[in-house]
Amino acid sequence: MPGKIHLVGAGPGAADLLTLRAASLLRKAEVVLHDDLAPAEVLELCPASAQIINVGKRCGDKSRSQQQINALMVWYARETGAQTIVRLKSGDPAVFGRLGEEIDALRRAGIEFEIVPGVTAASAAAASAGITLTDRNAASSLMVITAHNIRGEKLKASGFDPQRTSFAVYMPGPDYEKTARELQEAGVDGNTPCVLVSHAGRKSEQRCFMTLHDLAFCRGAVAPAILIVGKVARRTAESGEELDGMLVPVIASLNEKPGVSVEVSLQS
Amino acid sequence: MPGKIHLVGAGPGAADLLTLRAASLLRKAEVVLHDDLAPAEVLELCPASAQIINVGKRCGDKSRSQQQINALMVWYARETGAQTIVRLKSGDPAVFGRLGEEIDALRRAGIEFEIVPGVTAASAAAASAGITLTDRNAASSLMVITAHNIRGEKLKASGFDPQRTSFAVYMPGPDYEKTARELQEAGVDGNTPCVLVSHAGRKSEQRCFMTLHDLAFCRGAVAPAILIVGKVARRTAESGEELDGMLVPVIASLNEKPGVSVEVSLQS
Repeated sequence: MPGKIHLVGAGPGAADLLTLRAASLLRKAEVVLHDDLAPAEVLELCPASAQIINVGKRCGDKSRSQQQINALMVWYARETGAQTIVRLKSGDPAVFGRLGEEIDALRRAGIEFEIVPGVTAASAAAASAGITLTDRNAASSLMVITAHNIRGEKLKASGFDPQRTSFAVYMPGPDYEKTARELQEAGVDGNTPCVLVSHAGRKSEQRCFMTLHDLAFCRGAVAPAILIVGKVARRTAESGEELDGMLVPVIASLNEKPGVSVEVSLQS
Repeated sequence: MPGKIHLVGAGPGAADLLTLRAASLLRKAEVVLHDDLAPAEVLELCPASAQIINVGKRCGDKSRSQQQINALMVWYARETGAQTIVRLKSGDPAVFGRLGEEIDALRRAGIEFEIVPGVTAASAAAASAGITLTDRNAASSLMVITAHNIRGEKLKASGFDPQRTSFAVYMPGPDYEKTARELQEAGVDGNTPCVLVSHAGRKSEQRCFMTLHDLAFCRGAVAPAILIVGKVARRTAESGEELDGMLVPVIASLNEKPGVSVEVSLQS
């Protein structure tokens, strides 16, 4: 009986941002085919008997083609007797992970598969920077792109108001001057706040808040990084109602049951 | 000493799509303030001594305002002595979760917080439907919107080619006829494939594949649901190279160490 391929999102890189489902699959995996970015502490979850193979495109001297990775998945499922094969991809597999090509190959080969979603890098970067991605008042939509495909996009002529859209730019470097220029050419104002987050969710995470204009002068950001552009990337709280001094919660009937009703009254 | 607020993504609803970090925080939480969508099996992770409070806006008869939720977080952190307070939000907190308003309130009140990212509903829906969200060949960007804010957007005039963009529409119902019409008015072709996914990632998940045109006739989809629109939502594999019969992997030196090199040759 052919094995099953589990296309699993590893999340942004911190071992504890893996989902419980992903961790459970890794603990019983017979074969793990992983990308370069898979952190060692995630791979340590696998049983000692598991075959753990780096199929990362930057692995060693050889460049591994997507077709070779597809072929390897099919071969493991069909020919080796392995039943639980994990294809571990960084972030969420459905976002810039070449998932489409891998599931097409598995479908054509008649190999059973399931996809286990993960925390995508944009979510991890926003969390790390302490910001939101969408906002009722400032950002009604989120555009997820790569630096590579800003080119040729003419947001300027777009009905989607760049001032009310957040942009999560995957793989924004290394030429930040170009990324900054292309976003501005596409219609995003140079004064728009942005934050560049490296190693989101890991202990080594770094955040750099600036304007899109100043992004052009960014040097030495460590990959992998995510760029978030939009009003959401402002660092400080907007002015709003002060809660201080106006808050007298009246706890009516607090107990340990889920769904307990709590009354809060706000006195002016 | 005031407590710390952990703004935690609960993921799409299946307990095992929680991250390890979120599970660990829930296990030591003293107070949990959760939305309506938080599943019972997630809340069961909390210690028996924890105060678990549904602050969902649809809880009971009373409609709870965002300001009341903000006030409640600040009150718990300041006045109760609780040190570990979890604000549990469905999906990823940064995506349509009113996170911006909550962190602004915490910043203004000087309450320490951290954000723990989660699996957003679009990722879970794509995994459940067995599709990708971006694709090197078909979808170079992903637009994340709600049905509410399609209105007024004129994608038609947009430099972002709707034929090369995937759309993840949060809260797409209940008026699917309207959602379908507005997406078409915005420039998305009626023949574009789409998939409506209810309860993504849970045992009760449902998928309905159709064209955008046929979405107008959709009735009775169960909330919460996500609509994915774009070429990525086609159900079958595109024609491509058959791997059958052309695959002879040569395993050079397979062992249990991470990063082992595997040679794969493809014979024509």
